[in-house]
Amino acid sequence: MSDVSDMRQRLVSAATKIMEGKGTLSSPSETAGYLIDWRRRYRGEALAVMLPTSVEQVSELVKLGRSLGVAIVPQAGNTGMTGGAVPISDRPSMILNVSKLNRVRDIDSQNNSVIAEAGCILANLRETLEQAGKLFPMLLGSVGSCQVGGLVSTNAGGINVLRYGNMRDLVLGLEVVLPNGKIWNGLKVLRKDNSGYDLKQLFIGAEGTLGVVTAAALKLFPQPTNSGTAMVSLPSIQSAVDLLRVFADGAAGKVEAFEIISKGQLENVLSHHEESPPMPLSSPWYVLIELADSSIDWDPNQVFEQVLAGAVERGVIHDAVIASDSKKAGRLWKLRHTISEANMRKGFSVANDTSVPISKIAIFIEQVDKRLKQEFKAADVYYAGHVGDGNIHVIIVFDRAFYDTDKKREKAAARANFMVHEASVNLDGSISAEHGVGLMHIEELERFKSEVDLEMMAQIKRAFDPDNIMNPGKVLATSRIDAARNVAV
Amino acid sequence: MSDVSDMRQRLVSAATKIMEGKGTLSSPSETAGYLIDWRRRYRGEALAVMLPTSVEQVSELVKLGRSLGVAIVPQAGNTGMTGGAVPISDRPSMILNVSKLNRVRDIDSQNNSVIAEAGCILANLRETLEQAGKLFPMLLGSVGSCQVGGLVSTNAGGINVLRYGNMRDLVLGLEVVLPNGKIWNGLKVLRKDNSGYDLKQLFIGAEGTLGVVTAAALKLFPQPTNSGTAMVSLPSIQSAVDLLRVFADGAAGKVEAFEIISKGQLENVLSHHEESPPMPLSSPWYVLIELADSSIDWDPNQVFEQVLAGAVERGVIHDAVIASDSKKAGRLWKLRHTISEANMRKGFSVANDTSVPISKIAIFIEQVDKRLKQEFKAADVYYAGHVGDGNIHVIIVFDRAFYDTDKKREKAAARANFMVHEASVNLDGSISAEHGVGLMHIEELERFKSEVDLEMMAQIKRAFDPDNIMNPGKVLATSRIDAARNVAV
Repeated sequence: MSDVSDMRQRLVSAATKIMEGKGTLSSPSETAGYLIDWRRRYRGEALAVMLPTSVEQVSELVKLGRSLGVAIVPQAGNTGMTGGAVPISDRPSMILNVSKLNRVRDIDSQNNSVIAEAGCILANLRETLEQAGKLFPMLLGSVGSCQVGGLVSTNAGGINVLRYGNMRDLVLGLEVVLPNGKIWNGLKVLRKDNSGYDLKQLFIGAEGTLGVVTAAALKLFPQPTNSGTAMVSLPSIQSAVDLLRVFADGAAGKVEAFEIISKGQLENVLSHHEESPPMPLSSPWYVLIELADSSIDWDPNQVFEQVLAGAVERGVIHDAVIASDSKKAGRLWKLRHTISEANMRKGFSVANDTSVPISKIAIFIEQVDKRLKQEFKAADVYYAGHVGDGNIHVIIVFDRAFYDTDKKREKAAARANFMVHEASVNLDGSISAEHGVGLMHIEELERFKSEVDLEMMAQIKRAFDPDNIMNPGKVLATSRIDAARNVAV
Repeated sequence: MSDVSDMRQRLVSAATKIMEGKGTLSSPSETAGYLIDWRRRYRGEALAVMLPTSVEQVSELVKLGRSLGVAIVPQAGNTGMTGGAVPISDRPSMILNVSKLNRVRDIDSQNNSVIAEAGCILANLRETLEQAGKLFPMLLGSVGSCQVGGLVSTNAGGINVLRYGNMRDLVLGLEVVLPNGKIWNGLKVLRKDNSGYDLKQLFIGAEGTLGVVTAAALKLFPQPTNSGTAMVSLPSIQSAVDLLRVFADGAAGKVEAFEIISKGQLENVLSHHEESPPMPLSSPWYVLIELADSSIDWDPNQVFEQVLAGAVERGVIHDAVIASDSKKAGRLWKLRHTISEANMRKGFSVANDTSVPISKIAIFIEQVDKRLKQEFKAADVYYAGHVGDGNIHVIIVFDRAFYDTDKKREKAAARANFMVHEASVNLDGSISAEHGVGLMHIEELERFKSEVDLEMMAQIKRAFDPDNIMNPGKVLATSRIDAARNVAV
């Protein structure tokens, strides 16, 4: 019997006892779906996939992994963009999938809070809360399959960050199984707590490298009762930034979304639709704006008319369309939501996830546009993203006829990503605004973060997980964690 | 020459070189004011007080302290409530006061952000930003003397948390001198950044135990253009919670303050004023409400009239007064702002700083009220605080004639605090909602926090400050940090 199958047998046997005969998957046909990310870019190996049903089982499984030297890879909906939930191949690993921890433990309407387990699917959670008259505002493309544990562990963003913040802003408390197997009950639902270090912050966005998030206490909001949608065309990206300020002042806190789309991107989307464009395509930039609120006597379309009329007069925008009903609003939003699909059809599409200060969006786009177009002749460069977060996705669609091998495509993608990352960092930006580091950005992080940043990260990792048992090879290079062992702070 | 004066001489001599002859205070007359907290409850000892003028000097001073074994006590405006900036006596210490690091380095209007050094006084910063058309919304009693470094290090709250959040919610980035003397430049002004652990979170609310905050990047907001003030009387605390929900739904994001005052408290305040009460004092509870916004065509008084008329009809409130102008609003706010003063005049006043989930405010007050009144016969029990944060200050005013010695008063205060803390923790609350731990709550933290919480805190402290050189004896008991050295995680 090989070492691997021997270890698998010991692991499965002990895990089966812990989980009372259920939820241990070890045959290739059972585990295959858990070992690959949804974009099919990363494929890993694991001795087994565990599907615990209680936090106590999670705790026992972590202790088991620790005692056997088997790495633990926390996984929730497995919808991540950077391979953070895929095991690496150079360590014996188990996937600890939290999907079966999916109870909504408590809804507190007066406190505007909910306690949801890590395996709750976002769409289900939102629906449950809607029935209770409440809004949980996190919303992103994978709403139908992403789960609370992953949203917390990647500090998810999505389209409503401008108004409601990232996942970090929505978390009141956490329950976490630590790398030593202890259960930390930090499920507070308080708005204010300064009794010691704010420990939950460590686990938000840590991508499972510091522990397994098993439940979260989350903030709720009133359901917006009035909403409105408009699309505008603009002469420049700077005009979009200026227009956002006008809305942020005149409709403070009611701007739910402010999504920019470049002309080329919009044209590509429209070429896949049979509908006619919502407005003449004679401007270089378009912004989709959503206003919503539950305020008494507040009319979003009145705000639109007032603000946009002034903006046309001052030359900030060229033209505007206000959706007169929800069907027309849906048609406008469809243009935004089919961007990925349209680009995939057109060619080999690479999307970046950088952010820069809002004041530097215009110069950032000017710089990357020039450099990318110089470097790649057989590619289209598009832009789409969240102006209010400084998070503009730079999208390069490579011509498949020209970049006709996997190798050529991967090389071009790596080069393009580096150029975009470099431009962002030089403008005090980030190489990963909302998708995290995962496997994908480990090397880029080493390149673009300061030594002091990386040392501090390694010290935290070492303090919580000295044996690097929890999701190794993610966020931080293993070499850096090892180095930290021998270095005085 | 004694050991102490020898060490002082070596410290001062080296520090004088670092700071080029300026900013080293070591004579008792010069240092006295820095060694005591503003409430004159804690007095410490230090070899010297340093007033560096650059982050490089801070770095050199930290390295110096480390090499000499002199603890570093970071201090900003020294307006803390729990003794966090006062040196303890059992370690040779220096105070590292950041007051002279007081430049506003950058205002970015388009990005709605400012970079301010740790020694900037809040009132000055707010004024500078107002002149730039922006609001920095942090506001608390010590606005005229508290400084950015202290606000960050205590995760300050104040009266506008309901709308704008705690200091943590307002910080985009930090510059910190670490316990090893290295300068961490984390002064990002990004709205979204998931490129690794969010390191700034560690230093916010750490009360200077993990490093010296030297500058902060902060969020800005539009200046509200319309505001309104009202006071209502209510039959119960639960009615106040219900009314808050009505406002939170009907005027979402525009409720700046929602401050409750108990009848006894209001009567005591009024007894020190010559003005007549704003409304008949026949109800047990009063709430001061402030609405503000920069929205177009929005009238706070119209919202007040609509919401409050409905609330009277449904019996949620007894009566209401809407301030017709800013002078009358100021008169209402004066009642809130003179609470501390009025209570000090009446007796020996002890104020707690607990928080509970908003849904448990009513039961919390019912429980503590009963217990405190049973325990203390010669005392008045008042309530004032922030309903929207679950942060109700329980105030006990002891009769000085009955509690006629320091010892009796301290004993009664400790007993009262314990009772309030216990009730709060039993209702999933916190013993320190906004004031932090400092020196004051070290023992209570050991009593009321779980072992897992305290172990994790100690591991973080050890990872960043293995020699416990940075503000020792604050937040965490030294014994616990020492214990963590020898314990595997």
